Amino acid sequence: MAQTGNNGFRHSTSLVVLDPIVRKPATMTQQFASDNYAGTCPEAWAAMQQANAGSVAAYGEDEWTTRAANAFRTLFGTDCEVFFAFNGTAANSLALAALCQSYNSVICSSCAHVETDECGAPEFFSNGSKLLAARNNSAKLTPDVIHALATCRGDIHYPKPRAVTITQPTETGELYTLAEIQAISTTCRSLGLRLHMDGARFANACAALGCSPADMTWKAGVDVLCFGGTKNGMAVGEAIVFFDKTLAEGFDYRCKQAGQLASKMRFLSAPWVGMLESGAWLKNAAHANGCARQLERAIAQVPGITLMFPVQANAVFVQGPEGFLDRLRAKGWRFYTFIGGGARFMFAWDAQPEQVDALAADIRAACA
Amino acid sequence: MAQTGNNGFRHSTSLVVLDPIVRKPATMTQQFASDNYAGTCPEAWAAMQQANAGSVAAYGEDEWTTRAANAFRTLFGTDCEVFFAFNGTAANSLALAALCQSYNSVICSSCAHVETDECGAPEFFSNGSKLLAARNNSAKLTPDVIHALATCRGDIHYPKPRAVTITQPTETGELYTLAEIQAISTTCRSLGLRLHMDGARFANACAALGCSPADMTWKAGVDVLCFGGTKNGMAVGEAIVFFDKTLAEGFDYRCKQAGQLASKMRFLSAPWVGMLESGAWLKNAAHANGCARQLERAIAQVPGITLMFPVQANAVFVQGPEGFLDRLRAKGWRFYTFIGGGARFMFAWDAQPEQVDALAADIRAACA
Amino acid sequence: MAQTGNNGFRHSTSLVVLDPIVRKPATMTQQFASDNYAGTCPEAWAAMQQANAGSVAAYGEDEWTTRAANAFRTLFGTDCEVFFAFNGTAANSLALAALCQSYNSVICSSCAHVETDECGAPEFFSNGSKLLAARNNSAKLTPDVIHALATCRGDIHYPKPRAVTITQPTETGELYTLAEIQAISTTCRSLGLRLHMDGARFANACAALGCSPADMTWKAGVDVLCFGGTKNGMAVGEAIVFFDKTLAEGFDYRCKQAGQLASKMRFLSAPWVGMLESGAWLKNAAHANGCARQLERAIAQVPGITLMFPVQANAVFVQGPEGFLDRLRAKGWRFYTFIGGGARFMFAWDAQPEQVDALAADIRAACA
Amino acid sequence: MAQTGNNGFRHSTSLVVLDPIVRKPATMTQQFASDNYAGTCPEAWAAMQQANAGSVAAYGEDEWTTRAANAFRTLFGTDCEVFFAFNGTAANSLALAALCQSYNSVICSSCAHVETDECGAPEFFSNGSKLLAARNNSAKLTPDVIHALATCRGDIHYPKPRAVTITQPTETGELYTLAEIQAISTTCRSLGLRLHMDGARFANACAALGCSPADMTWKAGVDVLCFGGTKNGMAVGEAIVFFDKTLAEGFDYRCKQAGQLASKMRFLSAPWVGMLESGAWLKNAAHANGCARQLERAIAQVPGITLMFPVQANAVFVQGPEGFLDRLRAKGWRFYTFIGGGARFMFAWDAQPEQVDALAADIRAACA
Repeated sequence: MAQTGNNGFRHSTSLVVLDPIVRKPATMTQQFASDNYAGTCPEAWAAMQQANAGSVAAYGEDEWTTRAANAFRTLFGTDCEVFFAFNGTAANSLALAALCQSYNSVICSSCAHVETDECGAPEFFSNGSKLLAARNNSAKLTPDVIHALATCRGDIHYPKPRAVTITQPTETGELYTLAEIQAISTTCRSLGLRLHMDGARFANACAALGCSPADMTWKAGVDVLCFGGTKNGMAVGEAIVFFDKTLAEGFDYRCKQAGQLASKMRFLSAPWVGMLESGAWLKNAAHANGCARQLERAIAQVPGITLMFPVQANAVFVQGPEGFLDRLRAKGWRFYTFIGGGARFMFAWDAQPEQVDALAADIRAACA
Repeated sequence: MAQTGNNGFRHSTSLVVLDPIVRKPATMTQQFASDNYAGTCPEAWAAMQQANAGSVAAYGEDEWTTRAANAFRTLFGTDCEVFFAFNGTAANSLALAALCQSYNSVICSSCAHVETDECGAPEFFSNGSKLLAARNNSAKLTPDVIHALATCRGDIHYPKPRAVTITQPTETGELYTLAEIQAISTTCRSLGLRLHMDGARFANACAALGCSPADMTWKAGVDVLCFGGTKNGMAVGEAIVFFDKTLAEGFDYRCKQAGQLASKMRFLSAPWVGMLESGAWLKNAAHANGCARQLERAIAQVPGITLMFPVQANAVFVQGPEGFLDRLRAKGWRFYTFIGGGARFMFAWDAQPEQVDALAADIRAACA
Repeated sequence: MAQTGNNGFRHSTSLVVLDPIVRKPATMTQQFASDNYAGTCPEAWAAMQQANAGSVAAYGEDEWTTRAANAFRTLFGTDCEVFFAFNGTAANSLALAALCQSYNSVICSSCAHVETDECGAPEFFSNGSKLLAARNNSAKLTPDVIHALATCRGDIHYPKPRAVTITQPTETGELYTLAEIQAISTTCRSLGLRLHMDGARFANACAALGCSPADMTWKAGVDVLCFGGTKNGMAVGEAIVFFDKTLAEGFDYRCKQAGQLASKMRFLSAPWVGMLESGAWLKNAAHANGCARQLERAIAQVPGITLMFPVQANAVFVQGPEGFLDRLRAKGWRFYTFIGGGARFMFAWDAQPEQVDALAADIRAACA
Repeated sequence: MAQTGNNGFRHSTSLVVLDPIVRKPATMTQQFASDNYAGTCPEAWAAMQQANAGSVAAYGEDEWTTRAANAFRTLFGTDCEVFFAFNGTAANSLALAALCQSYNSVICSSCAHVETDECGAPEFFSNGSKLLAARNNSAKLTPDVIHALATCRGDIHYPKPRAVTITQPTETGELYTLAEIQAISTTCRSLGLRLHMDGARFANACAALGCSPADMTWKAGVDVLCFGGTKNGMAVGEAIVFFDKTLAEGFDYRCKQAGQLASKMRFLSAPWVGMLESGAWLKNAAHANGCARQLERAIAQVPGITLMFPVQANAVFVQGPEGFLDRLRAKGWRFYTFIGGGARFMFAWDAQPEQVDALAADIRAACA
């Protein structure tokens, strides 16, 4: 089968015995390998179903798209520009390409998804903008780190820094405080840099910090946000939100040229209406965060267990004694180990608390 | 609202009065401006709904994706490589980029979607491969036209031709016969060119010609096909099918880097299962084609009416007397006029025959 | 041997019998196939020789480069930004890339060098900006043609026009009058388009029209000029002159990234000092133009001869009776036929009037 | 003045008082900031001068270019493919782009010129191929480092390694032994990687190791070499030599599209004839290497002086006591400090031994 990668469990036996399509397929035990293992939440689904009715103008000239864009404006309390893309790789890359020329560079953490998991997409979309990855052994950037990277070179033999990207929450499940974001944006302003936020799990950050989307973004100096819908409970789709509207000039053309303009746009935009108008975006995130804290509480004191990062959003990274990971896998759990070699558990809107308990029990057993 | 273009009716008043989301939105009268004005057909929807259950591995490592890929192999009767992309612009551009280096060129019709309606996407994805558009005043290429374009220059100051792309059915709703495709592929072989088929409406071609997908593609010498799902009745999604598997090397990486790898891939692949296993792909297309013929029959003899192209698939292009288009618009009909200035009507899986009759009646009245 | 193209006389026998390097190579009879068949003129050579002395800072931080840039400012009577690139393909492509984003398009003549002889370089450097070639059967654009191309589409499915490029003199050896340039720039302004001039033979245009470089460019509304040095008598090198300095932002980085920053820059810049300070740039061009007129006068009345375009700069395009071209070739003349199938003769700074007479005599004989 | 960078001495006062061009310009005291501060050596100059005579076919279809390509074949003792580019940034980037697709990656040292001093050119030319820079605190790669980088990820979210580039000698003036190159190429073969050698100072490596160009390249498993002409004594120009000729397919088009095809190619190729046929390429390099050893010997025992890297080619990197660099600068010396903060001295074909002595004396004094 094409288009599958080797992410560590490629060669496992079939997970799902598919019944004929008239019946419900048997599903695997709930897994927390990633929040994109989850399906579509009811609110997004219902909106998509409603949107399915009748003839609707294509390419975003429909009322669902208008309504979704307006829902973002209401959510952020400002007249931002909103675009819809298919996935996070494209959303991030397009946003950065809008900030940069090919000879510019983007400052990021060495853990940043744009650096580690997008297969060179930022360089591809921008036609060569180089990522300058910090070496501070943290998924979080700081003003000092940014300043150092932005000023270490000033000659034309090195790409000119033009943007900073931060992931909120980070790929390690950590959070920037509002003060930290503000300090970063102040540094950016002083250096002539634009600030991009990769919000693949933006809702989780809002739920965790209990602050408004506005506080976390434009009020703290963020220029453009990629707001993740997929991991928040949608089937597909991310939103790119420009708070500095001048940066959005031509972005509709940019999306089209890059293969990111949906013809039946309503199916990308209506789920956002369902998520934002119902409050599901925040409810889903809060639930996922709660499951992470549930697991943290259940295993924090287990002898031999190390929590690799503070549990601040919907992720828990766990290291255990020798053989720990293999014993967990033997019990049927699936997880990624690409950050620091520990097991990553990432909770979604549909995580079942009893399954979290089952995982905790298996973790304890695997440490014994 | 962002991400809307000016396609001729941008400034029209709102088409849809959206009710609160708990109620069904009022839809506009059925329109035939494009087959992407239609929603998702029941078979695709049901599969998507089934696929929504439970935890499923991401990025295509799921059984729905395997099953969908196998359904294509069964449909085409060969062990092809299958990839899933979000939309047709990306599918075509990625396929052509796989065939070409940046210094190559692609021979196409001057009416080809890749030339006229993808905003430079083929050049963007390939990093500069130039399209050589034929000037034979037809949406169909011929061996002679291809030969002339491929051989008119042989110096390094002009991009070296490497691929030919044909749209089946064409953007004008015309069909290549199997013999014509075979003749084109023979010409391609003799010139060292690869043959790509833009099958945004591939199903319509199969239904119209009554031939098998295999006969229309690899048996006729097509190297790679972009099989359109969206216009065939899906919410989103196209398949790229490589019959020459060596051309697919690295294509999974290419998709990923270009922002075309869905994390919750099941929502892109399951609808294909629904379409292909149920036969809906062909049923939908046959229905749409039938509506086009219904309109053709109803208006062919109307004085003042000219059918601009033979009606062979699901499109009808109409010219009428002075003021004709305005009178049609005044009756509420929406249509594109970008090909030859006439009105294009394009029928989808959901076209209602009584609405086709209503359109025919209004056309007759607009000629009076 | 690598890096040779098939330009029509690739397979001819060796032209040059090279002596051991201690002796002077035998040269072929002077040819007028192109003005890049000529060597380096004495003024450029002398400056290069002077520049060869001693240690000099690299990458343009030397006084020769400063002096060359200032010579351009003096020549144009304005404080323009000046950059030096290796060849015309790069100069044009970089200039257009500075004006455009990847989703923009560039309006040009169908005869424009950027369209016909740069192997997709503009699309490559810009990462996809499409060229919109006029179909007015002329190497000259007009305000009407530009207006039509710029406004025929306004939707996001088609790349947004952002620049116009004109070649002065054109690839057919014709000239835009100052009034024509002014009219074009006025049209550009009204449409939000930038105006680029491909001046591969800019000096020939100045000499022919007898106007100042300023009159021909910024005073007529040109935003950026590529001023050709190679065809004017240098060994290598073109200058990119930005009259609107805001457009030059980051252009130094753009040149570097695109492999167009010479380390020993003095060898690119010093020849310009030699050409501009001595007046050789204009003298060379006037001489070349004069040779074209000489040929024109000598053959204009020959029965059977057609001059394909008005002789206004340094090119003469000739058509003759059947067998004419073969008879000319048999007499040892080399020429290109890629425009309209006729013979192109292009005169350089070193054209010998007696050789022009010899060519004229052979043309007459070939018509007999 | 445009196109100047800030490389640490941008704002210094004028270095050169230029006399009117009829007289010889006063030059600055010889500097060893870089080997590209030197002019053109006599052998290259003489060939260029000879090549300047008469009409010569353009774009490489001339005998000088044939002769230069053949001189490379003779030098390497194999039927390689040879191309000529304007500078090293372009040569490296084009060679790597020929090896990679956009979704591939290139393994390099963190000190590699392609990573640190080409402003994102490799990513630009390849449309996104990511550089994977080793973190082994050395300018030299090893089989282990390559193996680790090539195998740390195998999923489609990370660009697929396809090439390794090594610089010989390295940016720190160190050499790979033939055995080391062979071990690297063996590792590359086992991993399916191609091996590129950045030979900006290739001649210096040959002179230092006393081995043949063949031994250092194709006999040791190098697939493609960028052979530097500029630093070896030419005004401009590098050669790209493909030992695996299948990799050169279409490379002539690639050069043309990327603005690297010289029209008056003889001026790029003839100097190579002069360099290679006379042996100047090796003589120049041996002289430069000798000056480096001269400096090394003169300062190695000076108290407070540290030689940062073994002196193996034409570079010497020096650290000294506090205030050392400032005192050296006060004496008029110019140098780069971008590697490790020490002073880099790089000797060229024209380095005068008495000037090297003068530098050594000033270094000693600056340590006192």
